[in-house]
Amino acid sequence: MRRTLFEADHHAFRESAREFVDRTLRPNYEKYVEQRFIDREAWLEAGRQGLLGLEVPEEYGGSAAGDYRFNAVFGEELCRLSAGVASCIGIHGDVVAPYLVDLCTEEQKQRWLPRFCSGEMTTGIGMTEPSGGSDLAALRSVAVRDGSDWILNGSKTFITNGYSADMIIVAARTSPDKGAKGITLFAVETGMKGFERGRKLDKVGQPESDTAELFFSDVRLSAEQVIGEVDRGFIYMMERLPQERIGGAISNLAHAAQILIETIEYVKERKAFGQPIGSFQHNKFLLAELATKVDVTQAFLDQCTLAHTRGELTAVDAAKAKYWSADVQNEVLDACVQLHGGYGYMTEYRVARAWMDARVTKIWAGSNEIMKELIGRDLGL
Amino acid sequence: MRRTLFEADHHAFRESAREFVDRTLRPNYEKYVEQRFIDREAWLEAGRQGLLGLEVPEEYGGSAAGDYRFNAVFGEELCRLSAGVASCIGIHGDVVAPYLVDLCTEEQKQRWLPRFCSGEMTTGIGMTEPSGGSDLAALRSVAVRDGSDWILNGSKTFITNGYSADMIIVAARTSPDKGAKGITLFAVETGMKGFERGRKLDKVGQPESDTAELFFSDVRLSAEQVIGEVDRGFIYMMERLPQERIGGAISNLAHAAQILIETIEYVKERKAFGQPIGSFQHNKFLLAELATKVDVTQAFLDQCTLAHTRGELTAVDAAKAKYWSADVQNEVLDACVQLHGGYGYMTEYRVARAWMDARVTKIWAGSNEIMKELIGRDLGL
Amino acid sequence: MRRTLFEADHHAFRESAREFVDRTLRPNYEKYVEQRFIDREAWLEAGRQGLLGLEVPEEYGGSAAGDYRFNAVFGEELCRLSAGVASCIGIHGDVVAPYLVDLCTEEQKQRWLPRFCSGEMTTGIGMTEPSGGSDLAALRSVAVRDGSDWILNGSKTFITNGYSADMIIVAARTSPDKGAKGITLFAVETGMKGFERGRKLDKVGQPESDTAELFFSDVRLSAEQVIGEVDRGFIYMMERLPQERIGGAISNLAHAAQILIETIEYVKERKAFGQPIGSFQHNKFLLAELATKVDVTQAFLDQCTLAHTRGELTAVDAAKAKYWSADVQNEVLDACVQLHGGYGYMTEYRVARAWMDARVTKIWAGSNEIMKELIGRDLGL
Amino acid sequence: MRRTLFEADHHAFRESAREFVDRTLRPNYEKYVEQRFIDREAWLEAGRQGLLGLEVPEEYGGSAAGDYRFNAVFGEELCRLSAGVASCIGIHGDVVAPYLVDLCTEEQKQRWLPRFCSGEMTTGIGMTEPSGGSDLAALRSVAVRDGSDWILNGSKTFITNGYSADMIIVAARTSPDKGAKGITLFAVETGMKGFERGRKLDKVGQPESDTAELFFSDVRLSAEQVIGEVDRGFIYMMERLPQERIGGAISNLAHAAQILIETIEYVKERKAFGQPIGSFQHNKFLLAELATKVDVTQAFLDQCTLAHTRGELTAVDAAKAKYWSADVQNEVLDACVQLHGGYGYMTEYRVARAWMDARVTKIWAGSNEIMKELIGRDLGL
Repeated sequence: MRRTLFEADHHAFRESAREFVDRTLRPNYEKYVEQRFIDREAWLEAGRQGLLGLEVPEEYGGSAAGDYRFNAVFGEELCRLSAGVASCIGIHGDVVAPYLVDLCTEEQKQRWLPRFCSGEMTTGIGMTEPSGGSDLAALRSVAVRDGSDWILNGSKTFITNGYSADMIIVAARTSPDKGAKGITLFAVETGMKGFERGRKLDKVGQPESDTAELFFSDVRLSAEQVIGEVDRGFIYMMERLPQERIGGAISNLAHAAQILIETIEYVKERKAFGQPIGSFQHNKFLLAELATKVDVTQAFLDQCTLAHTRGELTAVDAAKAKYWSADVQNEVLDACVQLHGGYGYMTEYRVARAWMDARVTKIWAGSNEIMKELIGRDLGL
Repeated sequence: MRRTLFEADHHAFRESAREFVDRTLRPNYEKYVEQRFIDREAWLEAGRQGLLGLEVPEEYGGSAAGDYRFNAVFGEELCRLSAGVASCIGIHGDVVAPYLVDLCTEEQKQRWLPRFCSGEMTTGIGMTEPSGGSDLAALRSVAVRDGSDWILNGSKTFITNGYSADMIIVAARTSPDKGAKGITLFAVETGMKGFERGRKLDKVGQPESDTAELFFSDVRLSAEQVIGEVDRGFIYMMERLPQERIGGAISNLAHAAQILIETIEYVKERKAFGQPIGSFQHNKFLLAELATKVDVTQAFLDQCTLAHTRGELTAVDAAKAKYWSADVQNEVLDACVQLHGGYGYMTEYRVARAWMDARVTKIWAGSNEIMKELIGRDLGL
Repeated sequence: MRRTLFEADHHAFRESAREFVDRTLRPNYEKYVEQRFIDREAWLEAGRQGLLGLEVPEEYGGSAAGDYRFNAVFGEELCRLSAGVASCIGIHGDVVAPYLVDLCTEEQKQRWLPRFCSGEMTTGIGMTEPSGGSDLAALRSVAVRDGSDWILNGSKTFITNGYSADMIIVAARTSPDKGAKGITLFAVETGMKGFERGRKLDKVGQPESDTAELFFSDVRLSAEQVIGEVDRGFIYMMERLPQERIGGAISNLAHAAQILIETIEYVKERKAFGQPIGSFQHNKFLLAELATKVDVTQAFLDQCTLAHTRGELTAVDAAKAKYWSADVQNEVLDACVQLHGGYGYMTEYRVARAWMDARVTKIWAGSNEIMKELIGRDLGL
Repeated sequence: MRRTLFEADHHAFRESAREFVDRTLRPNYEKYVEQRFIDREAWLEAGRQGLLGLEVPEEYGGSAAGDYRFNAVFGEELCRLSAGVASCIGIHGDVVAPYLVDLCTEEQKQRWLPRFCSGEMTTGIGMTEPSGGSDLAALRSVAVRDGSDWILNGSKTFITNGYSADMIIVAARTSPDKGAKGITLFAVETGMKGFERGRKLDKVGQPESDTAELFFSDVRLSAEQVIGEVDRGFIYMMERLPQERIGGAISNLAHAAQILIETIEYVKERKAFGQPIGSFQHNKFLLAELATKVDVTQAFLDQCTLAHTRGELTAVDAAKAKYWSADVQNEVLDACVQLHGGYGYMTEYRVARAWMDARVTKIWAGSNEIMKELIGRDLGL
């Protein structure tokens, strides 16, 4: 179905984004997979092309697109290459950016944002802890005041860019007795004493994305490392999760849609029992269902994206978009694997990697179960 | 999710349509169910309110809304009462209207359209035959020339309004050797010699909608009864099926969405094991899924409706909308029955009737399987 | 798949049961549907053939089969005609029988069982109440002592055979402060003062089965009407629910399996687009899945039946059998409706009735949700 | 549900098999994963314990169990460790064995079977070709007579044990114009000139199982390398596929059942929002469904296994068992991943590996689609 979300500027930007993907990332994708992180050079090139600061004001080196549809386009184009690349870059430009732009002091912005936009400083965000899963209010990392400084202890896990990022925004409990109202965000930077990283985690998919555990042992943080106000971290995260979720949803669908297109090409070529396997009615109907599922979901995501562009996307609609798209993505990709037969099980085939890459989207950034809890509450249940 | 499809005029029209439903139809619904057709008085009142001629030019008594969104609004409001009422009135105002308006001669329009708009003449359309199901090109009804007249023989089945309609557009084979290119549409009217109707069919649901078999035994039709050009009937039908299908899809979803709202109210009130049954996590998550499914589907249908308003809806998108919405409708309603427990199995409960009413939407107007065939072909498979 | 559950005696008994169904019930099925109950003559004929007292000792007129597989065979044969007939007769011979045989005094047995076996006295059981649904421990019907008598007040709903049964076993609270340990079973008989029945309930399906609300207004019951010991009713019900559930499960599957067989015949005959519709790959694969689902489920039910024959069926396995078979039944029948196209929506087609008949099995005798609760607890969750 | 399939001998054998797994395989599992094949020492130890020749007569070094239930037990125990280990050993002892035992000459048996049983000679079977997928009758590998020898050319792919096996049974076309009736089986052994292997294929899962492409370039085979009669290879394969499929099905379910047990333990321990995550109703009901699905499937597989033990398992029942169990396995494991949250995506968790390992079972040894084709044909469609 023809999408009506995008206008001429977005189409032009898509061409640029696609060119970046095809020139800079695609030729190195296998290398990233092998080494299990994305080269710094790719970040720098993205920075040169103005792709990392879409949400950052020009005075700090950003491109200040001022329209979330550009983020959407960039996310879609990254995902057409790989979900892991999209998640690394998305965490930086789409998830971390709003924290820095909205909450930082002028001094902090000048300190961080130019390097953020140029790719010299890459970032991540540390919410999840080993014991806590989706229960953000139950954080155990703790920061205690020491004069005007803070002493941070604790650990985080499943942190995208966790191994390579130069700066991580870390949520820690600062007022232990105040529950969700006692959490503060800190910028922890590479080289700080007591800040250690575990090895790159061996994940089912997305090998090109470095994911790691982080350990904080008496990390001393000056007041200049506090992001926003003390004890307001939980609210800051809640306010920004809808953007993380709609961004994730957009990627989920673009990823599945791209592999579906490639699979349709495959079944037109591949023959069995003397005919293209796509001409078997079972496969034909299956692909009709998948194509419909993608189109239906795209319409919803486009509506959400437009709402977000207008600043009107609700948390509950973001939750719907995230869980629904993750389900669709996984269903589509599982069927695409099947349509590839034995080749669908070989990692040299894009569909096999995509299938492994996708599985995490039902879990991260608030599992599907958490999303349903939020939606159920919104229904008054 | 807030819909962006409608504008002020549509909202105002919705109020009128709702008032018509609440004043004229709702109080008589049980009576229609009992007698198994809708009173003529309801048709006449709809006519007085200008609801039957939304697509008909004013010179013939219509309201010439000129915007399919008004049809959509009316269909939604009818379905919020019952799917059967919506299908009876929809067949007339939404499905038959374009045939008469687009294809008839000036003389035919003057003869039929004023009474069509006033509700004095109700209509139906006869495509399906007992032997043929969804295979329109395999029609067995035949019309043979006799001078300038035609002699029609054959039968039709599953015809909505078939028992009560004053005029039925009937597709019959006129050039037996020309396959799909040898079918012509005829207007067969009550009282014509040789035109008989079977009893009202006992259906699983939609009892208020009279559905019947039609029998044609040497029915003599003058040239004035031919709709459009001879031998072009198949194309006429193909051209108009997308509107029938998007109209059906809109009704499917409105029907399910309305019952879902009522069910959410029910589970907040109904208690078991000491708490509202909607507060059990299983039910809460289930309702979250249903609400998401409805919202996602609505976004797609709204996009299709807007495309149709602009004359841009493709046959394949209409096919996607029809089958997908029928599946969603049936899934939602089945879950709503379950949430009502034993009461969901009692026909005095709206949810029970809705469940029975909905089952046909996966079958009629081109079954879901036919839709998938169309979509698969569009994918080049 | 060849079943190994049954031996020669069971096969012979199946022939008799089938003959009874074909001679006595099948020719009158439409009449039962019309009048919305089963003729007493059918009950008497079943009695004459020894089909009602399979679990009753011979001294009270029963056939004392002493092997639950005979019940299974009879249930299967009844369901091959209709689920409603099977539920009426099953409630009597399969569900109520164990209460009377296991719990009654010698005097009660002599009073009731001969007429129970002959069909002169038909029975039902009243557990569910309008306010309570599946929450048996929350009963509101109350029986208060008055000398050696009891005064019963309250109501029951969704009672199979409720309109026609001569005796209903009614669960009522006798020690209001003792929760589940304060419930007693009473035999309430036709003609008792203060015992009224509502009209036959209009159900989605199973019209031949009379289902009714029961009202008790100061019904005086002598001590001879108490079934078993006072205050032990809840335990009695819990002990006997596994048999009710495995019996229901057996019927569920037999019902679906029979319609599946008929549907396979149908799709071999019915043609569209020039070939039998069963030869379309989509339909072929669908039917392969349905046939597999039936076979797989049958193996499990047969294993459960054998365990029950040995007195070893656990409550949790009965719960698994009940909910799983209900899901399978409804999925199979929904697909069979679709395979019949428009005819699947016409109540004169067996598949249409079967689809409506089946919907209740996911709800009654402990809804699927209750079954999952039981199974989950058994897993230690 | 208590299984009734096994008797005392099988239980005793299970203990031995489990001990072998726990002592010999489990401690080395990570090493096998790392090196991507199973150590020869493990094969030899299996041989010493009599586990490789369950179907081989004692005179050739086998244990001649004479009862397929022993194979079933061994397969189940292997799968409780890993699906890949089970497939490697299963291909040898369960799939290849019958070809050698049933079809070989006395001379061949003496030459091969003792080393087959001792683990000195490991084996595989080469049916699938790069171009052909599930379409066995379309083989392109060709063997041409040269005197009493044969010259083999062609290639095979996705061959389990393909990299390490000492002997591979290879199906090749010997009478090109006779279709399925022109295929012959050959024993191709390590070191034969012109027999090359590709690298170990990078698969989504089962890294411990070496899978490879095989290339045959003018491989000269003497008449002593022909298995059975010339041109009867297709029939031989068709006759033995049911055992391969029921064996696969047994492994599929044992694999899923084991991980389900481990997951149930996990959700009892793991807490979120202050309670064990298994106590959330959504998870509780989900696990109830999974446990039911496993039990239901087990009953069917046990029935099939017993039938196979009696020599009565039909090809169509084996097809049902294979596809159904593969679906169940994948559904169960996907849910188990989700229940592990982020840890379910980390390959150090068994559930993550199991999920990846399982995906192939819907594809190999005849894809689920092929199974449905077979079942559909059996229904007369």
